[in-house]
Amino acid sequence: MHNFDYTTPTRLIFGKDCISKLPEVMSGFGKKVLLTYGGGSIKKIGLYNKVRELLSGYGIVELSGIQPNPKYDPSVLDGVRLCKEHDIDVILAVGGGSVLDCSKAIAAGALYDGDPWDLISYKVKAKAALPIVDIITLAATGSEYDCGGVISRTDTNDKIGYIDEHLYPAVSFLDPVYTFTVPKNQTAAGCADAMNHIMEQYFCEDSSLLNDGFMEAGLKSLMVNAEKCIADPEDYNARAEMMLACTYGCNGIYALGNSQSCWPCHGMEHALSAYYDITHGEGLAIITPRWMKHILSAKTVDRFVKYGVNVFGIDSGLDRFDIAEKAIQATYDFFLSIGIPMTLREVGIDESRIGEMAHHVAENEGLENAWAPLTEKDIAEIFTASL
Amino acid sequence: MHNFDYTTPTRLIFGKDCISKLPEVMSGFGKKVLLTYGGGSIKKIGLYNKVRELLSGYGIVELSGIQPNPKYDPSVLDGVRLCKEHDIDVILAVGGGSVLDCSKAIAAGALYDGDPWDLISYKVKAKAALPIVDIITLAATGSEYDCGGVISRTDTNDKIGYIDEHLYPAVSFLDPVYTFTVPKNQTAAGCADAMNHIMEQYFCEDSSLLNDGFMEAGLKSLMVNAEKCIADPEDYNARAEMMLACTYGCNGIYALGNSQSCWPCHGMEHALSAYYDITHGEGLAIITPRWMKHILSAKTVDRFVKYGVNVFGIDSGLDRFDIAEKAIQATYDFFLSIGIPMTLREVGIDESRIGEMAHHVAENEGLENAWAPLTEKDIAEIFTASL
Repeated sequence: MHNFDYTTPTRLIFGKDCISKLPEVMSGFGKKVLLTYGGGSIKKIGLYNKVRELLSGYGIVELSGIQPNPKYDPSVLDGVRLCKEHDIDVILAVGGGSVLDCSKAIAAGALYDGDPWDLISYKVKAKAALPIVDIITLAATGSEYDCGGVISRTDTNDKIGYIDEHLYPAVSFLDPVYTFTVPKNQTAAGCADAMNHIMEQYFCEDSSLLNDGFMEAGLKSLMVNAEKCIADPEDYNARAEMMLACTYGCNGIYALGNSQSCWPCHGMEHALSAYYDITHGEGLAIITPRWMKHILSAKTVDRFVKYGVNVFGIDSGLDRFDIAEKAIQATYDFFLSIGIPMTLREVGIDESRIGEMAHHVAENEGLENAWAPLTEKDIAEIFTASL
Repeated sequence: MHNFDYTTPTRLIFGKDCISKLPEVMSGFGKKVLLTYGGGSIKKIGLYNKVRELLSGYGIVELSGIQPNPKYDPSVLDGVRLCKEHDIDVILAVGGGSVLDCSKAIAAGALYDGDPWDLISYKVKAKAALPIVDIITLAATGSEYDCGGVISRTDTNDKIGYIDEHLYPAVSFLDPVYTFTVPKNQTAAGCADAMNHIMEQYFCEDSSLLNDGFMEAGLKSLMVNAEKCIADPEDYNARAEMMLACTYGCNGIYALGNSQSCWPCHGMEHALSAYYDITHGEGLAIITPRWMKHILSAKTVDRFVKYGVNVFGIDSGLDRFDIAEKAIQATYDFFLSIGIPMTLREVGIDESRIGEMAHHVAENEGLENAWAPLTEKDIAEIFTASL
């Protein structure tokens, strides 16, 4: 087991009507709030009005229109400007992981004098950040319980995972009822995203019985509950369990003491969604089984055997490579069964920019250091197999 | 799933030689330190000298001799007095869970003007506590990652679990090497304690696939690794995994959203160790299978089936009560196999005070509200079956 240094200081306030605690929570942070949100779904479900009502008496400045795969320009830059102009005390992010990711970059940029890209690109280390509170309306990214966010820069096709220990939300509100209206395709993509967060950590050089058991439980819980949420979008217990299972995705708790992993599927998918702005979870679902197939070897097969037997219940008496191949097929079949388009062409990506994307990934994501190292050629082959 | 409000702000610094970070950590809390420890085992393993060396330049006041089942008088009272006399900034607890539990009560008492028992007995709610840093030398209680501690008062035979959100350690250092010298019987008792923490949460009215999977992984990891630690006390990976698995025991993460449980085996065991000062983990191991047998019924059998199939691999095709009984027997057999004395007589307890203890438990522990409610008569019967 490797040494580690771990904290997740975020307070999770979870369950039906939990945002009634919002005034009590916000009173600890000052009166000037930047309220961030996306395209307006929070208005449709009545959450926007509820928040404004709960925070009457606060000075609220709004940043709306934050997109999926949130953009450095204009969203992060606008948010930083608003924080500085209005001397904001705290950011309240209401929406999915993209709104929260964007808000994290804003929180750091607001207390930095230079170009916020210096921070996101790790040229400069943040010394502080504004406090962040969030109300999550989509079960997927786990951003509500970690200190990272992914920011896209359209002018350079960069999509960077920006991680800094100042960026843990102070408080995350999770009311499963707000996810009842998430459409089936977004529910499925959220499940694929959360499952891939676990897989990125599961497929590694060395793990423990404890961590493996936690991760296998996470995967099984996500599969069972995503199916239930898709069958009945208002199944409270299924929405709740899926929401909780997503929360652990990226804060490191699944891999304490494991060898460090460099998240190869995320590295590859970031290029797809940076170049084509596709839904992150769908990109991950498409890539994952092709990546698995590509890296299956005598060196990696035993992890796939463990995964196949413990997650999918495949007969442990079969040949090792048989089990691994069945496990990979089961992964593909599950994503297909919850309605995810399982080819790149279906999400509007053809072969034309594969070389360029593979080059970008190879240059920027360090996948030569992955558990199963990937060269530019490997990456291009995985993209091609995903067409 | 039930609503919950959860945080564990403690920073875990884990692994071989991790205490080299002690000076950096302590520099954040001020220069006046109360160093708390037990009977001197930290001197034998060289940890005491190492700590003194790392903290040269600090003003260190010592409270030593803290016993297992730590005592209100003299330990808590002495610690509070020292903190007030010396205007202590931070408590550094070095040892097992008892030293840390005692230090938590001291941390709260140090910032309270009245009798510290007011706090421990919940007559008065603490408004603040001194910061606590710990270096853990025994894998067992999970106190390093929760905000509770158990304090015994010999004059009244009270043993109270004192929980307050001010009592999370700021930082916990966990170096598995410091557990190499823990004797086999203490290793086994630590395993039983940590397993029972999970069982107290597993056997409940409603849980989720996710939480159940986490808890089943915790139980399996503890069993496998305790056996390895007993076979080879210097097996680093086994000591490390056991240490990590113990850490999650009492901070609530295993039971987020589950129905609240009132920890019946702990309620009963607290009387045994309050009246007879036995080793807590041994008392739990003795009681647990007898409690299981006592509460097995048509209402509870399905949880025991899940436990038996998922933790012990019992054939799920058998009759439900057969599976449950095999699971209970397997629990007993495991504790016996790691060398735990599995009868009360072996730890010096006879029938003479069973009535008195059962009355004390029934009056103070609220076990009539347990998942499987226990009356004074039930408690006496479980004690008698444990003789």
